[in-house]
Amino acid sequence: MDIRESAALAKHASRAMATLASRTKDGALEAVASALVAAGASVFAANGEDLLGAGTLSAPSLKRLSYGEAKLGESTAMIDALVRLPDPSGAILSETELDSGLVLRKTACPIGVIGMVFESRPDALVQMAALCLKSGNAVILKGGSEALRTNRALAGIISTASVAAGCPKGWIALAETREDVGAMLALDDRIDLLVPRGSNSFVRHVMDNTRIPVLGHADGIVHAYVDASADPGMAVRIVLDSKTQYPAACNALETLLVHESLAAVFLPLAKAAFDAAGTELRGCERTRAIIDCVPATDDDWDTEYLDLILSVRVVRDMDEAMAHIREHGSGHTETIVADDPVAAERFLSEVDSADVFWNASTRFADGYRFGLGAELGISTSRIHARGPVGLEGLMTYKWKLYGSGQVVSDYAEGRSRFTHRDMRNASAPRRNSP
Amino acid sequence: MDIRESAALAKHASRAMATLASRTKDGALEAVASALVAAGASVFAANGEDLLGAGTLSAPSLKRLSYGEAKLGESTAMIDALVRLPDPSGAILSETELDSGLVLRKTACPIGVIGMVFESRPDALVQMAALCLKSGNAVILKGGSEALRTNRALAGIISTASVAAGCPKGWIALAETREDVGAMLALDDRIDLLVPRGSNSFVRHVMDNTRIPVLGHADGIVHAYVDASADPGMAVRIVLDSKTQYPAACNALETLLVHESLAAVFLPLAKAAFDAAGTELRGCERTRAIIDCVPATDDDWDTEYLDLILSVRVVRDMDEAMAHIREHGSGHTETIVADDPVAAERFLSEVDSADVFWNASTRFADGYRFGLGAELGISTSRIHARGPVGLEGLMTYKWKLYGSGQVVSDYAEGRSRFTHRDMRNASAPRRNSP
Repeated sequence: MDIRESAALAKHASRAMATLASRTKDGALEAVASALVAAGASVFAANGEDLLGAGTLSAPSLKRLSYGEAKLGESTAMIDALVRLPDPSGAILSETELDSGLVLRKTACPIGVIGMVFESRPDALVQMAALCLKSGNAVILKGGSEALRTNRALAGIISTASVAAGCPKGWIALAETREDVGAMLALDDRIDLLVPRGSNSFVRHVMDNTRIPVLGHADGIVHAYVDASADPGMAVRIVLDSKTQYPAACNALETLLVHESLAAVFLPLAKAAFDAAGTELRGCERTRAIIDCVPATDDDWDTEYLDLILSVRVVRDMDEAMAHIREHGSGHTETIVADDPVAAERFLSEVDSADVFWNASTRFADGYRFGLGAELGISTSRIHARGPVGLEGLMTYKWKLYGSGQVVSDYAEGRSRFTHRDMRNASAPRRNSP
Repeated sequence: MDIRESAALAKHASRAMATLASRTKDGALEAVASALVAAGASVFAANGEDLLGAGTLSAPSLKRLSYGEAKLGESTAMIDALVRLPDPSGAILSETELDSGLVLRKTACPIGVIGMVFESRPDALVQMAALCLKSGNAVILKGGSEALRTNRALAGIISTASVAAGCPKGWIALAETREDVGAMLALDDRIDLLVPRGSNSFVRHVMDNTRIPVLGHADGIVHAYVDASADPGMAVRIVLDSKTQYPAACNALETLLVHESLAAVFLPLAKAAFDAAGTELRGCERTRAIIDCVPATDDDWDTEYLDLILSVRVVRDMDEAMAHIREHGSGHTETIVADDPVAAERFLSEVDSADVFWNASTRFADGYRFGLGAELGISTSRIHARGPVGLEGLMTYKWKLYGSGQVVSDYAEGRSRFTHRDMRNASAPRRNSP
């Protein structure tokens, strides 16, 4: 089917999706999980063909493209966890009595049609489809062409099982060609939000070529600043974990900034730990005056290595560290290691990133670790959703006003008066002030 | 100064704005109000020159362009009201214990640099500058060229008074030329959010020519559906108020949809009321079989009159009414008049608009009436903010994690476990389900 037609059907289906009962959606998720298990062999067979067709692959590419028993188990476990989460749709976000018999409810509802564009990784298809089903959104999925057979098998199973369980036809659609991606980016009247997943350049390409809002992140150039007041042992533990616990993640550390007064003590300890972890250090001149390492070039400060490489710079003070982060950071995640709470609060307040941490590893920047339940992705946008994003990233809201015949002229002409009473939290102020 | 340079300065100033103490911001607002009063004569003189320069103006245009004692009084009253509102920046939106000694706070913070582009109306400049100051954002303002002298006077007074009271230089900048607008729309690395105000075509132009997120609305094609179960007297009161209480507003009624079974009773009552209010009715054939009125053309269903004109259509049932709204609505505000709660709840749930009302006038769709305090505008976007938007439309959030040396490897390898305890509302569920 033409992608424009699929998108029109998805838009139509999104209306029925938005009003499905929670039990229908959860029942459909359970039916999808059962169907995936039942039809596992056909998915594995399709995936085998994709793997054969892909030719010689590097180990990481092979791992991303393959979808076998283990990935299927992860998919069904993810679906089970989603079923147990509360339905985000219909949640009442605020409730205000405007006047007697006139009640305003800000109510969460799905965004509509989500466009997901991802590279290889067929398991991402299952995850995204399940998140959209749970939240009541329709979805158009475009995966990597090298995984086309696997994606077709998975999307077919999900569609058939969920529609049999009460979802509207066309709520999930698969886009298949490169031309479809270009068409999707232009369908701003039918697709309400794009969620791209893949390499930085891929996400950047999506962001640069659409007027549809994009939820995601391109670069993750993550910094740690070790303050003069830091405990050197804690600092070593935190930066080592931030860099090496999973170097390919977007929240892994790329640049270490060290206060000059602690550098002579801290850097030799850090070097010993990173040497033991097989991590290459690339240092500024002041760093190399203290420890032996590769000289850092200007490019190093702007590079997301996603590998066991770390750039290191000695700074005069926290201001120089924050200026470095402003110039080279990507607004993703930064951490300060410090004993001084004044320094730490200043860093958390002034550093303009989605995640700002004190005495904790940057690797905590993750939806699961944040306790968000399901994770949609990490956003470096300042609008709609920022940092790790759970199901709420797929939600918007509408204002429902329940009246009993009220008209505005009565208020404009003084016959009636607004009460504006918060009905959910009558004793507490609407907002907290610092 | 070149607009790109002003925007770079504003970006720089936005960092200091974001960390100003609440009392500094409120003190600066008070200083601005005092300075406006003290320098009123110079503003009125500048406005007089603008009015002279504008030549012959229609009464509404004259009213929009003029800035005299009354408008100054409204400006200072608005600033006083803002001072009394709590500071939206720094509000803790959620607080979760991830583990003992590891606390995550989702904290509200300003978006950064707001670009405001508006037509004539110098009072909008004062309002927007004050909203940005209160919320800790920097702002670049571009007003209509016919109001340039007034805008210069106002921006100068606001800048001088607020900087003297502790705001960073350059937090407020005025763009002056048509070329500046084009440049602003392209400055997506320096401007974080655009708030356009003016005619539909003007807002549409901004939305169509920028990659910066836009908060606003173009059309407001607002519908009322009078259900078979409606009380005819209540229905007349509500649709009359929706249309005539202030016809030039975006939340004023443009199309009336009437269930066929109530049409013969309701339409003659409605006609009498609208005749008395000097409102022209344009009806479909079925409407004209019941009451005498102008025949509606296809264009009428897609027209925002902003005037005492109303299109009227008799529908077979609520499904036909909702289909009409889907096809012709702009996602702004719709109301149903009905006694039947099942019909009403279905309408509120299925109609995909920012504001959906039951037995209430569409004119309630307004930030002040909703109790939001200050109103930034009304958004028909589905992302970030929807419907009437208060100060929270100028806010984003960051995730602050307060640790005591925690690393992720301890959790990955089972030595530590997450507690994920909601610290703000321990006894209540995170979300309400319907």
